[in-house]
Amino acid sequence: MRVLLTGRFDAGEREAWAAELARQLPEAHWLDDAEADAAPAGITAAVVANPAPGRLVRLPDLRLIQSLWAGVDKLLADTTLPPSVPIARMVDPAMNAAMAETALWAVLALHRGFFTYQAQQRQGQWQPLPQRRADEVPVLVLGRGQMGGTAAARLAAQGYPVQTWGRSDGALAPRLATAQVVVNLLPLTPETRGLIDARFLAALPRGAALVNLARGAHVVDADLLAALDSGHLAHAVLDVFHTEPLPAGHAFWQHPRVTVLPHAAAATDERSAAAVVVANLRALQAGTPIANFVDRGRGY
Amino acid sequence: MRVLLTGRFDAGEREAWAAELARQLPEAHWLDDAEADAAPAGITAAVVANPAPGRLVRLPDLRLIQSLWAGVDKLLADTTLPPSVPIARMVDPAMNAAMAETALWAVLALHRGFFTYQAQQRQGQWQPLPQRRADEVPVLVLGRGQMGGTAAARLAAQGYPVQTWGRSDGALAPRLATAQVVVNLLPLTPETRGLIDARFLAALPRGAALVNLARGAHVVDADLLAALDSGHLAHAVLDVFHTEPLPAGHAFWQHPRVTVLPHAAAATDERSAAAVVVANLRALQAGTPIANFVDRGRGY
Repeated sequence: MRVLLTGRFDAGEREAWAAELARQLPEAHWLDDAEADAAPAGITAAVVANPAPGRLVRLPDLRLIQSLWAGVDKLLADTTLPPSVPIARMVDPAMNAAMAETALWAVLALHRGFFTYQAQQRQGQWQPLPQRRADEVPVLVLGRGQMGGTAAARLAAQGYPVQTWGRSDGALAPRLATAQVVVNLLPLTPETRGLIDARFLAALPRGAALVNLARGAHVVDADLLAALDSGHLAHAVLDVFHTEPLPAGHAFWQHPRVTVLPHAAAATDERSAAAVVVANLRALQAGTPIANFVDRGRGY
Repeated sequence: MRVLLTGRFDAGEREAWAAELARQLPEAHWLDDAEADAAPAGITAAVVANPAPGRLVRLPDLRLIQSLWAGVDKLLADTTLPPSVPIARMVDPAMNAAMAETALWAVLALHRGFFTYQAQQRQGQWQPLPQRRADEVPVLVLGRGQMGGTAAARLAAQGYPVQTWGRSDGALAPRLATAQVVVNLLPLTPETRGLIDARFLAALPRGAALVNLARGAHVVDADLLAALDSGHLAHAVLDVFHTEPLPAGHAFWQHPRVTVLPHAAAATDERSAAAVVVANLRALQAGTPIANFVDRGRGY
């Protein structure tokens, strides 16, 4: 089995993936871009991390595109993607757990005033805040996939009244009206792009907070800044941005009501994710069902 | 039933307690210090929040001292305390939950690098850190009481390998040797005062972190600062201090590896705590068992 490993990786990242994949599936022949260009025939699978547009159309025998990332919005934006080759996205249990940890940390910090206390510390100020019980802090989780589901379950286990919302659930405004914290874990699709805009934010009660762990393009930045500056929104925890890294000088960096994370809410874990990839590659060879197919029409 | 409500309260706090207690036990006659001094006879119970030393010895008919606070180290330091009157401390389920929330928030932040990311934000720096799974971050909870137990259970539910230690467990050093995070929820007693000293900190692996949610006097501040400055200890989250509020100019305020909270890890919740008090007062009247007696010899 000839498999191409391709995409945009940070320093050392490609080597780490290649080593882990080769360790878990040593009988495969793992190729890089140059090797694939030299002999594209017979490459039946591509394991990809946001590959260069036009990269995959050059593989005539491709039968599976396996994404290393959970979000496939950038992959699907490649208009040359071979239309009949199935795409599988990453559903990594370790990544789901990491995402739920970040959601829980952010909700606990917002509920208990820990961001405020950290700001007080920088001012040398000692001021305990009124304490609310978890059952007094309703949380709305946007996204009903594996990530949204895991986060919602862990939040509910801490006593938060949790609602979830997905694209098939209809009206969002009534759920926003009762939420103290909104956690965004939606996929980025044409329907969800720009969802978090002035209307969305106005539907939240005054003093609510936003945790965006999904994609920067879900948010209309100017509307979010306006809601923060007016005091309508108390705080935003943002892991994702329209441009990443977040450009120097962007208003989010220094905003007292914004916590910036460097797209670190949940990294794919090479060890567990490689096992997911290898299971799909073995299924491709054996002709058994492949997991986590992307619905290109739906966008995730 | 005549009950004295006495102690040191923040502004408005005594009134809130008095209102909630009167609401839940309207048939009692609730007295303040002046009323008790005017007619001390027949006062059978005192509900106290760090009362003035010498206050309780003046009540000849006292049969129960009920603390509003979980920690009774200051109460027991009153050498005039009538020796034969039983003392009950507060065990408030809402407070236990709040303490566990703070412990979980701190451990999540330490495990996932969120304090580091917040420092990076202030520098305009974008640098994701390597991601560990929760099962790679052993946590040691000091204290096996209701608070330690609740925190340990919630941490274990998130996948952390949790050990606990109490004063009857013997050697502490072997448990420190494997801990990445230590959460202190011990009572303050002569045995635990100054427990977190140079020897304790040296027994931790390099890069470990401390979360002190119990009492400032558990810690030898100079030893903690030395361990932080040498880099042996990566971070300390401190909610409690030798002097509170933490004095202006104290090294903890501005230390880059210290997170200061204003003794806010867990407040007693007036609603649920008043119910605990009222249940004990009813038990006193009915002659049925009183909950959460303090062992004066043990100190908690």
